[in-house]
Amino acid sequence: MGKLIATWSVAALLAGGVLISGLSAHADEDSKVLRHIVLYKFKDDLAPADVQEVVDTFAALPSKIDTIVDFEHGTNVSPEGKSEGLTHAFVVTFRDEASRDVYLKHPAHLEYVEVVRDRREKVVVFDYWVDE
Amino acid sequence: MGKLIATWSVAALLAGGVLISGLSAHADEDSKVLRHIVLYKFKDDLAPADVQEVVDTFAALPSKIDTIVDFEHGTNVSPEGKSEGLTHAFVVTFRDEASRDVYLKHPAHLEYVEVVRDRREKVVVFDYWVDE
Repeated sequence: MGKLIATWSVAALLAGGVLISGLSAHADEDSKVLRHIVLYKFKDDLAPADVQEVVDTFAALPSKIDTIVDFEHGTNVSPEGKSEGLTHAFVVTFRDEASRDVYLKHPAHLEYVEVVRDRREKVVVFDYWVDE
Repeated sequence: MGKLIATWSVAALLAGGVLISGLSAHADEDSKVLRHIVLYKFKDDLAPADVQEVVDTFAALPSKIDTIVDFEHGTNVSPEGKSEGLTHAFVVTFRDEASRDVYLKHPAHLEYVEVVRDRREKVVVFDYWVDE
């Protein structure tokens, strides 16, 4: 029984340790971060498959560029009609401007730019600092 | 010694339980949410105090409209020169479109719109769904 308690104790401590470690990582994420918003309007005659290739190529960047700490993307569903024709959003989060600059110059990002360059009619890029 | 281990075991299990409970709450937050991006270019001759009043009035909305679950804002620091003159970003997060619609029609939001209406030269509004 003593051994059982000891075993459970070790298991519980290990579990607690893993969870505390997870929370510490989360606490770090609560510091200031840099958001990088990219909005696109694609060319009217662009095939859906060519749009999808842009989305998929952008969405693959977080697995290739380790200075990206968060990433989300989606298509416009605003009912307000103020999107200026922009249909696709990508929001990339970095720890700081140096991390953003690593991304901008990264070969994987430069390859992505080659994919999107002739397919977009309009792009808006907006970066801002935020307390997470 | 057995008692000490048992005490530590209970303490560790309790700590683990609290942490697991915290993680469960976090898991709830991981469900789908609706992001509402608003970007502004203000009129060139607008006084800094009048810009600040817009920022402060927008930033007060989360305390007045309870369907807002997250809010952040900031000014553009992108070095890419692709912001189309847009200088201020506000990102409001809702649980769903109904919550966004409550916000759009809320008296506090309508009052805010009166503050910003004649001060902006350009606005972009873009809403998208995201898995948190």
